[in-house]
Amino acid sequence: MSDSYPLAEIAKWVGGVVRGDASTRITGVAGLDEADSSEIAWLADERYAPQLKSSRAGAVVVPRHFGATPMPAILCDDPSLAISAVLAKFAPAIPRPAPGVHPTAVVSPTARLGESVSVGPCVVIGDNVVVGDRTVLHAQVFVGPDVRIGSDCELWPGVVIRERCTIGNRVVIHPNCTIGADGFGYQYVGGRHVKIPQIGGVEIEDDVEIGANSTVDRAKFGVTRVGRGTKIDNLVQVAHNVRIGPNCMIVAQCGIAGSTRLGQGVVLGGKVGLRDHISLGDGVQVAACACVSKDVPAGKTVIGSPAVDHEQFVRERAKVRRLPEMADQLRALIKRVEQLEASTDHP
Amino acid sequence: MSDSYPLAEIAKWVGGVVRGDASTRITGVAGLDEADSSEIAWLADERYAPQLKSSRAGAVVVPRHFGATPMPAILCDDPSLAISAVLAKFAPAIPRPAPGVHPTAVVSPTARLGESVSVGPCVVIGDNVVVGDRTVLHAQVFVGPDVRIGSDCELWPGVVIRERCTIGNRVVIHPNCTIGADGFGYQYVGGRHVKIPQIGGVEIEDDVEIGANSTVDRAKFGVTRVGRGTKIDNLVQVAHNVRIGPNCMIVAQCGIAGSTRLGQGVVLGGKVGLRDHISLGDGVQVAACACVSKDVPAGKTVIGSPAVDHEQFVRERAKVRRLPEMADQLRALIKRVEQLEASTDHP
Amino acid sequence: MSDSYPLAEIAKWVGGVVRGDASTRITGVAGLDEADSSEIAWLADERYAPQLKSSRAGAVVVPRHFGATPMPAILCDDPSLAISAVLAKFAPAIPRPAPGVHPTAVVSPTARLGESVSVGPCVVIGDNVVVGDRTVLHAQVFVGPDVRIGSDCELWPGVVIRERCTIGNRVVIHPNCTIGADGFGYQYVGGRHVKIPQIGGVEIEDDVEIGANSTVDRAKFGVTRVGRGTKIDNLVQVAHNVRIGPNCMIVAQCGIAGSTRLGQGVVLGGKVGLRDHISLGDGVQVAACACVSKDVPAGKTVIGSPAVDHEQFVRERAKVRRLPEMADQLRALIKRVEQLEASTDHP
Repeated sequence: MSDSYPLAEIAKWVGGVVRGDASTRITGVAGLDEADSSEIAWLADERYAPQLKSSRAGAVVVPRHFGATPMPAILCDDPSLAISAVLAKFAPAIPRPAPGVHPTAVVSPTARLGESVSVGPCVVIGDNVVVGDRTVLHAQVFVGPDVRIGSDCELWPGVVIRERCTIGNRVVIHPNCTIGADGFGYQYVGGRHVKIPQIGGVEIEDDVEIGANSTVDRAKFGVTRVGRGTKIDNLVQVAHNVRIGPNCMIVAQCGIAGSTRLGQGVVLGGKVGLRDHISLGDGVQVAACACVSKDVPAGKTVIGSPAVDHEQFVRERAKVRRLPEMADQLRALIKRVEQLEASTDHP
Repeated sequence: MSDSYPLAEIAKWVGGVVRGDASTRITGVAGLDEADSSEIAWLADERYAPQLKSSRAGAVVVPRHFGATPMPAILCDDPSLAISAVLAKFAPAIPRPAPGVHPTAVVSPTARLGESVSVGPCVVIGDNVVVGDRTVLHAQVFVGPDVRIGSDCELWPGVVIRERCTIGNRVVIHPNCTIGADGFGYQYVGGRHVKIPQIGGVEIEDDVEIGANSTVDRAKFGVTRVGRGTKIDNLVQVAHNVRIGPNCMIVAQCGIAGSTRLGQGVVLGGKVGLRDHISLGDGVQVAACACVSKDVPAGKTVIGSPAVDHEQFVRERAKVRRLPEMADQLRALIKRVEQLEASTDHP
Repeated sequence: MSDSYPLAEIAKWVGGVVRGDASTRITGVAGLDEADSSEIAWLADERYAPQLKSSRAGAVVVPRHFGATPMPAILCDDPSLAISAVLAKFAPAIPRPAPGVHPTAVVSPTARLGESVSVGPCVVIGDNVVVGDRTVLHAQVFVGPDVRIGSDCELWPGVVIRERCTIGNRVVIHPNCTIGADGFGYQYVGGRHVKIPQIGGVEIEDDVEIGANSTVDRAKFGVTRVGRGTKIDNLVQVAHNVRIGPNCMIVAQCGIAGSTRLGQGVVLGGKVGLRDHISLGDGVQVAACACVSKDVPAGKTVIGSPAVDHEQFVRERAKVRRLPEMADQLRALIKRVEQLEASTDHP
């Protein structure tokens, strides 16, 4: 990260214009409160404007209409988007194993690897696996037989993909993730839990990203599906036969129980639990830590455990907060009624 | 999954009888709403009977007394159980490393492997390990010194079993599971958290199944025990010195804190938290997302956070829901009492 | 664990004195209710004193002032601390790979390993990695390029440390932990979630311990930091740009969202969720299962979801418990007011 660029060049990257010294040299990105004079910060929200005064940033990215700043500025349409572009320029190359198969990898002779595929040390690839062009399998990845992986994917160390699962193109799977373990299905027969065979698979569509140590179980039959463009964070559980639509966001430690369905663009905050066999419509938003036990219609926001409509939750919380006051009023009122009764009974 | 069987043969597998064309050929299993004409579906619950009309399934499994169906049917005592048997027949063989030790595995010369044990690529087995007959250690499994594993077990890739743990017979441990990491125990001495040695082990009894990326910590001393026939889902935490009885069901993302005890047949829904040093009696059921902070007597169902008796929870929830109404009534009543007081004070 | 020691010697280990037969031989440690005649138990709390009568322990550690016991005793200042010392003496040696590099490990020629470093089978170490003296990398660990690891660390099997992260001295990381995976950051542009480059790193300070299958994400820029002496349990999520102060305790399955800050000595009970961009002051305690959505000042204890001050929580819970009674009172009061109104209207 020791490369340095003049502000004038950075402005070009983001389609912005410089106000102040365009020759200021920048070596990295940091937040307003942490940046030093060689770093560029940005104003994510105008609420943070007062931080500009105390910031030691060498430069700042602000909206086009924004007023004077204590340091040179780049004016642009969307500072957050701009800073992403700057980060991408400063990003050190992601280290990857070289194209080809590392001598310690164990690759079935029936596996078919595309062009420029990288297979790192101690990777294990089973029979009849197909891997698309330029896909990177980092060290210690396991790919079971009959798995199909698309092009331009990246599987990080410790990822396990069990047999017969399908991974699309441009999919990123972070370390120690498990795809295709058996679904959790048993029948209680004769005093024992008897395993229901889990003979289906998992289908991860294009442009999906799955966080570290997350688990996506294989289906009882058919597939468990994660829709195109959906992003899943760390330590998330996706149970058997779940269907997740496209472009959903699923934050860390969520759990989605068996056969539940998510429409498109659904957002689950951190630690959300969804029970089995329910359905969340397009665009549903679930607040962090909520536990959803029934269907949620498209476009709704739910919160709480058990989850309810956001407005209902706020209303009930407000009333619960008022409970001590209500109890006092009720106690006082009982006394006043007693007095009234006394004066009415004995006029 | 391209094998096909006539309905007549499938009926024999499940002890059922065919109604309709017994020569109908079936290639797989699917739900009523997804099956096509080569697949067999089943009626898990008679509530779903209306779905029969729109289903394109080639055949359906129904209870013996069930009426006419739009497609050929197999009549039997328990359709859900029957479909498990059908799944088992259609199940593709689970791919396993061949019996013997893969040349890339690192096996201590003092380890004793039973007959027909399979040791996959990059497996590491420590000193004095004992592995029973026909047990399968998939690629990249780690087994520490002095571990004992029974017969007919299956350990999937990335499983780590640390030293001195004991695994029974017919145990299945899914990928990236960690058995026998140190319990979380410290004493606060002189301004620092000083580690309490965790010198015990873990004992997993026969017929246990543990889901992907779950963790079972070793005991401070003695053992952390998972009882015979208990099934644990993905991403579950079992802390040091926990004792889980036989035939429990522990759904994904549950956490059981140190020294807590579960009787037999306990069921924990998803994301349940149990505090340390408490006891759940036989047959206790805990609803998903509950947080249990005290003992629960045998046979009880608890729910909520902090968890309470199911009936109490329902009662309190109903009252909370009525709170806005109560607040209105109280406000109105205060006015009426004020009027009464006015008319009584000044008669 | 078959070594045996006379009570007289054990008393010396803990700075205590023996009351009763000092030649009693002890082979291990167990709880009062489980110890047999060759084991030593201890009185963690005088509430447990009644268990002494039925205990079969061969000896017991008690506070100096404690009265007569049915078995020989060691009297000392702090029985819990003493038993830790006893555990340490009975602890079997932790099995580690021998110093040196196992022939199946894949170590970059540019990596620099200190003295007496142990590198186990199938370990992968990238370019320019630095590892301090006596550090142990167990089998199947992955260390990405440009990572720096201090002295006397222990990384258990399946641990993944991605590129450019920094690990201090005496750090323990348990199996299948992931350090330095990408933070979860996207911008919604043109109907798609576009990844924000996560170009920062992770800094784990001295004397930190991180539990099995936990995840600490790399920063968007700068670092995600875990402070010196902090202990993290299993299955915990630490998101990008989080800053955790020194000597915190974070129990299993907690989740800390992006950019949130913890002061020193913060304690999070199991399954706690902290939202992004908030701050918890020094010494804050969060009860298990709480979901914290705003700043918490130093020294406070919070509980519930959404988390509130402990006293407020207790007060509100008590009122909710009284709700059925309040509803009854309100109903009765309405009737009484109706009667009053009737008698007042028609005097």
